[in-house]
Amino acid sequence: MQLTPAQTLDQVAELIEAEYHGDPNFQITGLNEIHMVQAGDLTFVDHPKYYSKALHSNATTIIINKKVECPEGKALIFHDDPFAAYVSLVKKFRPFVPATAMVSDSAEIGEGTIIQPGAFIGNHVKIGTNCLIHPNVTIYDHMVIGNNVIIQSGTVIGADAYYFQRKPAGYRKFESCGRVILEDNVEIGANCCIDKGVSGDTIIGFGTKTDNHIQVGHDTYIGKHCLIGAHAAIAGVTRIEDDVILWGRVAINKDIVIGKGAVVLATSAVDKSLEGGKAYFGVPAIEARRAWKELACIRQLPEIIEKLR
Amino acid sequence: MQLTPAQTLDQVAELIEAEYHGDPNFQITGLNEIHMVQAGDLTFVDHPKYYSKALHSNATTIIINKKVECPEGKALIFHDDPFAAYVSLVKKFRPFVPATAMVSDSAEIGEGTIIQPGAFIGNHVKIGTNCLIHPNVTIYDHMVIGNNVIIQSGTVIGADAYYFQRKPAGYRKFESCGRVILEDNVEIGANCCIDKGVSGDTIIGFGTKTDNHIQVGHDTYIGKHCLIGAHAAIAGVTRIEDDVILWGRVAINKDIVIGKGAVVLATSAVDKSLEGGKAYFGVPAIEARRAWKELACIRQLPEIIEKLR
Amino acid sequence: MQLTPAQTLDQVAELIEAEYHGDPNFQITGLNEIHMVQAGDLTFVDHPKYYSKALHSNATTIIINKKVECPEGKALIFHDDPFAAYVSLVKKFRPFVPATAMVSDSAEIGEGTIIQPGAFIGNHVKIGTNCLIHPNVTIYDHMVIGNNVIIQSGTVIGADAYYFQRKPAGYRKFESCGRVILEDNVEIGANCCIDKGVSGDTIIGFGTKTDNHIQVGHDTYIGKHCLIGAHAAIAGVTRIEDDVILWGRVAINKDIVIGKGAVVLATSAVDKSLEGGKAYFGVPAIEARRAWKELACIRQLPEIIEKLR
Repeated sequence: MQLTPAQTLDQVAELIEAEYHGDPNFQITGLNEIHMVQAGDLTFVDHPKYYSKALHSNATTIIINKKVECPEGKALIFHDDPFAAYVSLVKKFRPFVPATAMVSDSAEIGEGTIIQPGAFIGNHVKIGTNCLIHPNVTIYDHMVIGNNVIIQSGTVIGADAYYFQRKPAGYRKFESCGRVILEDNVEIGANCCIDKGVSGDTIIGFGTKTDNHIQVGHDTYIGKHCLIGAHAAIAGVTRIEDDVILWGRVAINKDIVIGKGAVVLATSAVDKSLEGGKAYFGVPAIEARRAWKELACIRQLPEIIEKLR
Repeated sequence: MQLTPAQTLDQVAELIEAEYHGDPNFQITGLNEIHMVQAGDLTFVDHPKYYSKALHSNATTIIINKKVECPEGKALIFHDDPFAAYVSLVKKFRPFVPATAMVSDSAEIGEGTIIQPGAFIGNHVKIGTNCLIHPNVTIYDHMVIGNNVIIQSGTVIGADAYYFQRKPAGYRKFESCGRVILEDNVEIGANCCIDKGVSGDTIIGFGTKTDNHIQVGHDTYIGKHCLIGAHAAIAGVTRIEDDVILWGRVAINKDIVIGKGAVVLATSAVDKSLEGGKAYFGVPAIEARRAWKELACIRQLPEIIEKLR
Repeated sequence: MQLTPAQTLDQVAELIEAEYHGDPNFQITGLNEIHMVQAGDLTFVDHPKYYSKALHSNATTIIINKKVECPEGKALIFHDDPFAAYVSLVKKFRPFVPATAMVSDSAEIGEGTIIQPGAFIGNHVKIGTNCLIHPNVTIYDHMVIGNNVIIQSGTVIGADAYYFQRKPAGYRKFESCGRVILEDNVEIGANCCIDKGVSGDTIIGFGTKTDNHIQVGHDTYIGKHCLIGAHAAIAGVTRIEDDVILWGRVAINKDIVIGKGAVVLATSAVDKSLEGGKAYFGVPAIEARRAWKELACIRQLPEIIEKLR
């Protein structure tokens, strides 16, 4: 999430009542979790295992629970519970504001766009021109919809990321401040869920069309001109390149890449990155030709085992 | 879709600014895509591979992109882009009319039927007597619901068919003008999606009961007294005969037939037509007895391979 | 379901116009189907195969279709169609009352709880403090939500149990009078369905968090601090103990127990009870280590069969 206006190190440290190391006027221009950081961002780290990764990431301000040496050109904020400190900043800069109407006054809605009754359009949502938002769709605050987009009924754009930290007392929620961006000419089927990014954006590219009941996790990127079949379950922080086709009920793991033009056949589950331009099948998915060969072998197995005895 | 009143060849050709071959007063009584055509229908064909099929189908008027010979008793309309021409006719004869209320004034709702708050009932919807439509259900324009039907919350009846044509610039949408028909005594679970037919009807037969999160594609027919378990994903243009039972999370391919009384066990995926009266299991589904035998063999496989070495 | 106030045997028998055996003032304090019965409950039995089970269950009043001997300390009601008699009692004591507003006047909503627009809160619903109910959520009558609960959009709490009895004329519905109870600190994702109990309660325990599109059947119990991944399909009358983790798209059979701390890997289908503290994978799910071994064997199968020839 961008911070507009930018904050200073001193201002941010004061908000979470923490000591810091660095120029009090050091600029903080965004909040981001570690997977998405860029220069100007504040992030956090609370486990020694990840100290080095966080300190040497693109983030320039790091909330950390140990007094380590500060990398050059960066700033540190010291806090006993960096997770809690970070989440409190998210809540301060992106507070939840209850809605007072089905369509927020603060939403920007383009010419020719139709919002059907029962659709909820949250605060600060932007919707382009000539869209059709069907009844009982929900679009959470701050989401961004392009031009010529169609969203079928019951679909939820921008629910919170499914992202928790386990503590002895239970799970703590990683508050999401990211967005969903649907590019131009996207069509989303009925009763789908596209979750917002934790701090970045979940993006569905130009001209991609999805069937019903699909799930897209936080911070996932889907390219242009993809087809996503019914009941697809796509986890978070994954990248699906252009022209990919997922047939019905495909499952895609988090944090992987599906190459351009790959085709994943129905009911397959993809656990690791796939090269583009090929067809895949199975649980876990392998190249379809190989999967069919193995299946043919299984078909023969009872007779083969019989003979072996 | 029926055209009421019927149109003449001359009228329709004029709407799409096209030349034609045939009697100007030749009657066109319906618009239908090639899978559903009957006498009186107009359909279209744009690929030489399918010319013969379209010309010799039951359709009596064909939009085509080549000046071929006209079969006897039929009419032809010549157009460079038959898909676009057909879609523009669908939009002319079944225009989208934005709703002005959660329950349309034009909807016919039978005696004793309860529409709960938050349910959307579109234009020209017909609902029979003694139905219960739970909160936040969406019923799109023109859908038809019988008597004693129960629809649980969040369910979407009549979203657009998932049907696109790939062109170099992206996917073009095949506009749907068909309907969903729920016969008497049907019950649909929560958060289900039953898509409308592309040009014909998606039908769910008398007394069939579905659990939650089920998906039924366009133009699919489900017979009487079926049970459809949670998370079933049933593709388009498929026929499920009477008394079929699908346990939880079954996937059914498009364009196949599931015979009367077939039972498909949980998590199975059916890729081709199944004979009635038997039980099936697996991905792809085969007769359950055989599937269990193969599974038992797989269970022994590590020990058998060990011995073979 | 508890009967408040308690009824007498005589009163209940009169409602269904049936003869009975027992003290006219014998107390009936609840209605319950056979899986959930306790002392004071009325249940029913209509098949000789289950007579003994019903007569010797914890239920103290039994509607039965044969004049059998009455167990000591119990009462019997004789009726030709015990199912119909029982369902008519459910309807009498828990009648469906159409809503007159999106948020019922009879709902009790705690301090600090936010109900977003488009959410439906049924009659006699209880919601605790500091909850956030997102737009287009549906909470059916009589459901119970604890404190600090978050429910994402499109989710349906308390749809009817999927529970029917087959008769020659079609399926008869087992009317549900149970509840859903979400304990404190629960979070439910978007477009989920948690069905009410048939006569008891469907319970989700303290601190459990679910992703989107999950389905929980009637009378199922999910313990504390569980994580339930997207597209999980959990059948009815099942018990999931504390600290269980279900990764994405797991299916769980009805009437089984998943032991404390078990982990079920993505896309697995669990058909029988699982011991706690272990990881499982596959369809049907077995211990993950064994499942991977079998998978490795299948991977080698084409080459092994080749060599055998």
